[in-house]
Amino acid sequence: MTKKRILITNDDGIHAPGIKHLWNSLKNDYEVTVVAPHQEQSGVGVSVTIRHPLQLNRLHWNGIQAYSVTGTPADCVKLALNVILDERPHLIVSGINRGTNSGRNVLYSGTCGGVIEGTMRDIPGIAFSLSDYQDPKFESIERFIPPFLEFVFNKPLPPQTFLNVNFPSVIEGAPKGFKFARQGKEYWGESLDARNHPTEGHTYYWIGARKVQFEENEESDVSWLNKGYVAAVPVNVGDLTENNHLRTHKDLFEKHFECLNF
Amino acid sequence: MTKKRILITNDDGIHAPGIKHLWNSLKNDYEVTVVAPHQEQSGVGVSVTIRHPLQLNRLHWNGIQAYSVTGTPADCVKLALNVILDERPHLIVSGINRGTNSGRNVLYSGTCGGVIEGTMRDIPGIAFSLSDYQDPKFESIERFIPPFLEFVFNKPLPPQTFLNVNFPSVIEGAPKGFKFARQGKEYWGESLDARNHPTEGHTYYWIGARKVQFEENEESDVSWLNKGYVAAVPVNVGDLTENNHLRTHKDLFEKHFECLNF
Repeated sequence: MTKKRILITNDDGIHAPGIKHLWNSLKNDYEVTVVAPHQEQSGVGVSVTIRHPLQLNRLHWNGIQAYSVTGTPADCVKLALNVILDERPHLIVSGINRGTNSGRNVLYSGTCGGVIEGTMRDIPGIAFSLSDYQDPKFESIERFIPPFLEFVFNKPLPPQTFLNVNFPSVIEGAPKGFKFARQGKEYWGESLDARNHPTEGHTYYWIGARKVQFEENEESDVSWLNKGYVAAVPVNVGDLTENNHLRTHKDLFEKHFECLNF
Repeated sequence: MTKKRILITNDDGIHAPGIKHLWNSLKNDYEVTVVAPHQEQSGVGVSVTIRHPLQLNRLHWNGIQAYSVTGTPADCVKLALNVILDERPHLIVSGINRGTNSGRNVLYSGTCGGVIEGTMRDIPGIAFSLSDYQDPKFESIERFIPPFLEFVFNKPLPPQTFLNVNFPSVIEGAPKGFKFARQGKEYWGESLDARNHPTEGHTYYWIGARKVQFEENEESDVSWLNKGYVAAVPVNVGDLTENNHLRTHKDLFEKHFECLNF
């Protein structure tokens, strides 16, 4: 049987350790192509680079040919599909990110951004993140990666949907278990720091980062992660319509504008 | 009665004409603060700048003091809330964008990104875009802007929801009407162009842009726009869980991992 084609990307950049461990966990069972940002792209979401051109670098990487792109994870996917790959991949896999992308961080996360770009054209995706930020032990979660691919190939994701997988801290041991979960509310907010330029004196600002926490549903990814479980959320980015509000206020909205004498 | 506080931003940059017309339409009835990107930020979605510091410029702009930030629309909102504004705004308004942000472009759009940053902390928002890309007549839609604010103040948006408003081309006359709509599928995809560096010879790539079109529901924003109507979609970015898939496969997912002998 021919192997399934997997496109691997990330947002920590081609030289980050997480993507090497992701590739290592999949390279024997799949036909893998690695296309990742030339530099770290944390926090860029599904950004695309339209105001300056991109360079595509072919490089020797862990004994294979891989590619780096001077842009975002979404740019990487666009170049992979248009320039690098002869055939459409069966799946896009992104990560393993250093730090969580649970809750509402799916919108900020470049790790998720790469797979969201795939969902636009109905290529399913999985984003992997590890909660540990300092000295993350990616090698210890490699063996847990392939079962996620087996699951989505066995039970295909609906259109315009990806799987957002977050691992809890594994510094003190393996995860307690695996949960299919709802998206939580937590997100990475700013922790603003104002400083003065050393010679010019003007003020500049670091956005910084701090977790903004909420009371969470116990079936949410954030709750499971906090209890030491791996949490996987099926995330649909195809239709964000707030249908209740639309249905409730549709007539009123249209009447409001009809009654105006423009 | 004290005026409501409005924060205005955009993604075309502080010097783009669209934001001036947005401000002009609201300046008399609201207490308005303008904080916009120093440079154009189209396509950056809800990106945040975490790997380099930001400068905040105070500038004289159309006879008032406004602010520019060397970052994204989401960065502008973060700096506005943390550094510029004494009190939380009642609403964040973004645009008027040059070009449509209908359908699935809510995820790519920096115009929407600015208001999404607000929804994270339960500040409602409205994103305005005009379909005309060449020589857009923003002045001719100014009068249609205030009724949208009146509507959302009268019938508040649900938490974590913003209104995505797109105007059809107005080159040949006023819109045919106003519709409360579902999100369509259309998005701005790439139109890749490979070129050679003039002296170094290497290949570089422009992502470019082209509309990727689908068969659309007739109640979608894309369909109404194509018929000459203004379309407003209530967009919820708070919970993107694909609940059907979660419910259907939760047990199977958890069993799949339980049965593995890690």
